[in-house]
Amino acid sequence: VRLEDCPTPALVLDYEKLQANCEQMLRRAADLGVKLRPHVKTLKSVEAARLAIDPTHGGIAVSTLKEAEFFADAGFRDIQLAVCAPPDKLPRIARVLRTAPEFSFFVDNISTARALTDYANCHDEGFRIWIEVDSGEHRTGLAPDDPVLLEVASLLASEPRVTLCGVATHAGHSYGARSADAIRAIAEQERLEVTRAAATLARCGIEVPGVSAGSTPTAMFGASGAGLTELRAGVYMAGDMFQAALGCLPEQQISVSVLATVISHQPSHNQIVIDAGALALSKDRSTAVLPGGDVGYGMVTDVAGEPTFGRLFVTNVHQEHGEIPCPDDSSFERLPIGARVRVLPNHACITAAQYEEFLVVKGQEVVARWTRVNGW
Amino acid sequence: VRLEDCPTPALVLDYEKLQANCEQMLRRAADLGVKLRPHVKTLKSVEAARLAIDPTHGGIAVSTLKEAEFFADAGFRDIQLAVCAPPDKLPRIARVLRTAPEFSFFVDNISTARALTDYANCHDEGFRIWIEVDSGEHRTGLAPDDPVLLEVASLLASEPRVTLCGVATHAGHSYGARSADAIRAIAEQERLEVTRAAATLARCGIEVPGVSAGSTPTAMFGASGAGLTELRAGVYMAGDMFQAALGCLPEQQISVSVLATVISHQPSHNQIVIDAGALALSKDRSTAVLPGGDVGYGMVTDVAGEPTFGRLFVTNVHQEHGEIPCPDDSSFERLPIGARVRVLPNHACITAAQYEEFLVVKGQEVVARWTRVNGW
Repeated sequence: VRLEDCPTPALVLDYEKLQANCEQMLRRAADLGVKLRPHVKTLKSVEAARLAIDPTHGGIAVSTLKEAEFFADAGFRDIQLAVCAPPDKLPRIARVLRTAPEFSFFVDNISTARALTDYANCHDEGFRIWIEVDSGEHRTGLAPDDPVLLEVASLLASEPRVTLCGVATHAGHSYGARSADAIRAIAEQERLEVTRAAATLARCGIEVPGVSAGSTPTAMFGASGAGLTELRAGVYMAGDMFQAALGCLPEQQISVSVLATVISHQPSHNQIVIDAGALALSKDRSTAVLPGGDVGYGMVTDVAGEPTFGRLFVTNVHQEHGEIPCPDDSSFERLPIGARVRVLPNHACITAAQYEEFLVVKGQEVVARWTRVNGW
Repeated sequence: VRLEDCPTPALVLDYEKLQANCEQMLRRAADLGVKLRPHVKTLKSVEAARLAIDPTHGGIAVSTLKEAEFFADAGFRDIQLAVCAPPDKLPRIARVLRTAPEFSFFVDNISTARALTDYANCHDEGFRIWIEVDSGEHRTGLAPDDPVLLEVASLLASEPRVTLCGVATHAGHSYGARSADAIRAIAEQERLEVTRAAATLARCGIEVPGVSAGSTPTAMFGASGAGLTELRAGVYMAGDMFQAALGCLPEQQISVSVLATVISHQPSHNQIVIDAGALALSKDRSTAVLPGGDVGYGMVTDVAGEPTFGRLFVTNVHQEHGEIPCPDDSSFERLPIGARVRVLPNHACITAAQYEEFLVVKGQEVVARWTRVNGW
C-alpha cells in the first residue's frame, strides 16, 4: 500500500530516518563514553525501541506504568519509569516486577520513600529506585545539596529488599535554550549536578551504582559524559520542528509526520483546509516561542515528505480541520480537493499520542504497521 | 469504587451535571422552537448521546467517520457527519449507510459534488448531503451569495440517487466573542446567513428540507430560531473553563474533569506536581486569550470537584507532569504526596480525546464506565 491510498488522518513513521536518528544517538553516546538508555515515551512502539536500544546496555526508559507493562510483556527487562510514582501505584509496580525483574522508578520525597520501604518490608518486594535530582529544570527532583536527598537515600539503603539503582536527572530546561552554546552549558550543569548528588551520597557511604542523565538537546550538544553511567533521551528518534529549530536534527530527518487530505478550498480567504486539526496535529504550540521559528501547528510537505511548498504551515486548527493559508493562486491547482499532504509536527510526543499505530514507510510505500501504547 | 481508589490520570464524567446540561440545551432548543441535533464529538459516548438526543428529532452529529461507524453500530440511524468529506471517503461512507440509512455528510465544493454524484450513479448509492454554508467563521463552507452554492445544489438535485438534506452552518467564530451581546449578534448572523442560503436555493426551485445551524455559544445565547429546522451543539454536555468564561454555563456545572495524584512537592519553588501533564490535560490553551480568564492548563479542585483551593491552576505541563504553584505554605499539608485532585479542563473536546473511557460518577462514587470512540 502506498500513502496515497491510506485513510487520513494517519501517523507516518519513516523507517530510514528513524534508523538514522537512532544510529546518530548511539554514536553520540559512544563519543561521550556513556551507554544509552532510549526513552520510549515519544514513539511508544516495541519495534522502534528495538532499533533504538544500546546493545551494550539493553535498557529503556518509559513515562507511564502502562508503557512499562506493554514493554515488559514484549520481553524488555530493564525498564526505568523516569517519573516519580506515588505510593498507591506500588501494587501495580510490584506486578510489573514479575515480568520485568529489573523494572525501576523515580522517587524524590521522603513520604514515598517511607511508603515503598514499608511496602517492600510487608510484602517482601524488591523495589529498584532511582532518586531524582533537580539539575535546574525545577520540575521534580531533589537539589544535590538538599538534606532530604541523603535522608531518602539512607532510608532506601536501610531496607535490604530495596535496591538503590542510583541518581537520575533530566535537564528539560534545555528546551528553553536558544543556541548550541546555551544547550552545551545546560548539559554541563545537568552532568555536574547529578554527579555532585552521587558524590554526596558516596561520601556518606551510600553506594550509587548508576548516574543517569539526559534530554535530547543535552545529549546532542553535551561536551562530556564524565561521571555518567547512562544517557537518557527520547524525542530524537522522531524529531520535530521544535527539535529542528534547536539544532538537534535537520528538518529533513524528522521521521514522524501526519498524513492528511485536502477537504476544502476557500479562494475568497485564500485558504486550503485539511482533515487534520487539533486532534490529529495536537494543540502543542512549542515553536511559537522561537523567534522567527513559529511553524503554527506544523509544516506542510508533499506526500513524499519533501518541502515542495516551501515554508507552508497549518496556521489554525479546529477539532477536525487544519487551515493552511495559500502562498499564491496556483496553490489550489497544486493541492486540489482530495490531495494528500504530510505535516511535520511541532512536538512529536504530543502529536503521536492521538494514534493507535504508525504507518511505517520506506519512501511512500507502507512496509509495516507498528502498534503504539497510549494512555495510562 | 470511589474516585480516591481509581488509578490516575483518569477522565471523570459527573452524571448529574451531564444530565442537567443536556436538559438545559433541550429547553433552549424548545424555547427557540427548533429541534436539537446533539453533536457527540466532545464526549464520543453512546450512553452520553442517549441522554442528549432530542426525542422529537432523534439524530446526532459526529466529527469523524469512525464516530459515525461507532454510533451506527450502536443503533443510531440519523447521523450527520458535520465535516466536508473528500471523495476517497465515499466507499467507507457507503458502508456506513448499510447500518445507518439516514447517514449524511457535508459538501462545500463542486469537485466533491461531482465525485459523489458520479459514485452514486455508478454504484447505485443513495448519498444524503448537507451543503455547508459559511456564516462568518471562514473555515469551510460556501458563502450564501457564492454562485458555487447554486451550482453544487443543482448538480446534487440532478442526481435522483442523491438526497439534498439541506444547508448547514456552524458559527465557530462565536468562540471569539467576549460578551453575551456579541454572541447573540453572531447567533443572528449564523441564522440569517444559513436561511439566506436556503432561500436562494428555494427561489431556484431546489427543495431545501433542512436548515441546520449551531455552536454551543450561539445555541445558548441566540434570540431566534426562525427558519432553522435543527440546532447543533456539542461541548455544552461537558462544558469547560472556556465555555464557562463565555457564560455558556457556570463553572460548577462542568461535567468533565481529570482525576490526578500529587507526585512531588517542591517547597523551594513553592510548587506541587501532579501526574496529569500535557497528555492527560492536553496542551489546549484556549483560555489564554481571555482577558483575566487564563486558567493555565486547567483549574484544580478537590476530589469532590469542589473549588476548595480557590483559583488554583495548573500553570505548566510536561508530558506526564503538571505544575501547580502553591498559594501558601499550608498547601503542602492540604495536598500531601498521594492526594487526589481533579482538574477542570480548558477545552473538554481536546482533553477527553486522550482517554478510552469515562469514570461516570455520582458524587465521588463511580457508577459506570462509558467507552469513548477516539481516532479516525
